[in-house]
Amino acid sequence: MILATRNNGRRDGELLVVSKDRARAARADAVAATLQAALDDWAATAPRLFELAASLERGECGRAFGLDARELLSPLPRAFAWLDGSAYLNHVALVRKARGAELPPTLLTDPLMYQGGSDAFLAPTEDIVAASEDWGIDFESEVAVVTGDVPMGVSVAEAAGLIRLILLCNDVSLRNLIPGELAKGFGFLQSKPSSAFAPLALTPEELGPAWRESRVHLPLVTRLNGELFGNPDAGPEMHFSFAELIAHAARTRPLRAGTIVGSGTVSNEDRGRGSSCLAEKRMLEVLDSGTARTPFLRFGDRVRIEMFSDGVSLFGAIDQRVSRPGPR
Amino acid sequence: MILATRNNGRRDGELLVVSKDRARAARADAVAATLQAALDDWAATAPRLFELAASLERGECGRAFGLDARELLSPLPRAFAWLDGSAYLNHVALVRKARGAELPPTLLTDPLMYQGGSDAFLAPTEDIVAASEDWGIDFESEVAVVTGDVPMGVSVAEAAGLIRLILLCNDVSLRNLIPGELAKGFGFLQSKPSSAFAPLALTPEELGPAWRESRVHLPLVTRLNGELFGNPDAGPEMHFSFAELIAHAARTRPLRAGTIVGSGTVSNEDRGRGSSCLAEKRMLEVLDSGTARTPFLRFGDRVRIEMFSDGVSLFGAIDQRVSRPGPR
Repeated sequence: MILATRNNGRRDGELLVVSKDRARAARADAVAATLQAALDDWAATAPRLFELAASLERGECGRAFGLDARELLSPLPRAFAWLDGSAYLNHVALVRKARGAELPPTLLTDPLMYQGGSDAFLAPTEDIVAASEDWGIDFESEVAVVTGDVPMGVSVAEAAGLIRLILLCNDVSLRNLIPGELAKGFGFLQSKPSSAFAPLALTPEELGPAWRESRVHLPLVTRLNGELFGNPDAGPEMHFSFAELIAHAARTRPLRAGTIVGSGTVSNEDRGRGSSCLAEKRMLEVLDSGTARTPFLRFGDRVRIEMFSDGVSLFGAIDQRVSRPGPR
Repeated sequence: MILATRNNGRRDGELLVVSKDRARAARADAVAATLQAALDDWAATAPRLFELAASLERGECGRAFGLDARELLSPLPRAFAWLDGSAYLNHVALVRKARGAELPPTLLTDPLMYQGGSDAFLAPTEDIVAASEDWGIDFESEVAVVTGDVPMGVSVAEAAGLIRLILLCNDVSLRNLIPGELAKGFGFLQSKPSSAFAPLALTPEELGPAWRESRVHLPLVTRLNGELFGNPDAGPEMHFSFAELIAHAARTRPLRAGTIVGSGTVSNEDRGRGSSCLAEKRMLEVLDSGTARTPFLRFGDRVRIEMFSDGVSLFGAIDQRVSRPGPR
């Protein structure tokens, strides 16, 4: 099943069910007004949403309309939790090297994860607004999942069954603010401004065999100003699965329905696959030639993130331009 | 105006307006079903909530009922953002000394702040459930504010006017998990489980002259197992005001209505005022005698946090017991 959230002028938008060809949609208001409302009561709403999706697929849904991706928000325009892991160790090694930070000794056994801002996600095609290019504006192309209610101390096996939806994310990062902020010891705050998500949220079975072992086994494609920047496979090198990331997050506290858990920047050891953020590419340049040649994002730059299967853009595209703040 | 949220079996509870003697209340469902809904549309809802509060005060509200504090949840049972500062530098100095960590060089100019879990706040009298006493379970008595919509790059002066409500918080901390977690560089996650808030949310003018310079100038009283543990004044030694904390949080991103910003553990240099967490008391014991004698919380221990004016418990009490997880 494919879900989306359309802008209706309200903070949480309105929930849509989307056809498998991504061309048509129907409002799900008879089941749940918003995606958060559907997740809050998933046992009751999911079967009815699946029914609506089936009727849309059969062409029997009288309320179907043509989907206009420009009207879509992030599937959860605001969420009660956004917990971003860093499960691709190749990325961890490169960005830590880039800022001269040591690798944590527990790298292989204890996931890195931070709690990010979730009150104000950007829409998939909304500008990344930053006051200054000097902040070192970067994208991070990621996969993420939305959980149901997760009890404290959940097992990895149980966590796997609590994954409701799969998303793509651009975890915008301000690289030049990170070292000072992390030195204070309290983690990221100013250095991780609002993230954006691709417009379509997929239930796990919608991915077919590409969803296995709580990982998405497909390349994540990033384009910068129209050119291919990276297409690393999100599956095999994800050291901690989403189920493991969820269990980590829930060790000492429950997670409530609608919690988003991110994979961290997708990264492969094979350099031929490119990168999913500028920081990695810059570090590889330093390793090769002593100097980073690729700049961080500049005003007007455009980043596009999506994932394909048989030519279909599964989650729709994150497609954002970097811009200056407008007048207030 | 005094607001509260009553448990009605739903995730966000139902919004109440409370009388100034804290004895009576009325449902505000004709204005907004939940506190988040009221904050989402504050310009329209606030005047109507003030009207309802005035009619309750005059005894003219036909729907008034006797308030039972045991039915109240944290004012926002879940929130889209919980950003906790650490504005009392005496606390920062003591807890860093306790774990052998250095003071950040920007201590006086750049607030410490982390993004905490906000999807599952505990009710004011709900147990603090922890799997093990070995985690070093601690309380942190704090003041917090709820913001309206805050634009990115807000000034301190403008931020002061965007404070909608004032709360008290118990920011539960697992001290023995903190050093390992902070060493990884991504901030608190497992070491900061669910927080709890006092049941009553006050608009700033409700505090009268005690609210000035975006600070609450009253002692915050903490009792441990019935005995006074600390009553430091939350006002003069709050190095960064709430307006400054909000401006810090919003430097690179907007904050949406309903964001909660915490003061950090209230702490005074005068040792006669006691402490607002066990970690501080233990560090003072180490400084005095070389050994911490006070243990962290044990199962069955009880912590009570409140703030008084003329004998009235302004926000109602946080009153929590520590307990083992129940059967699942």
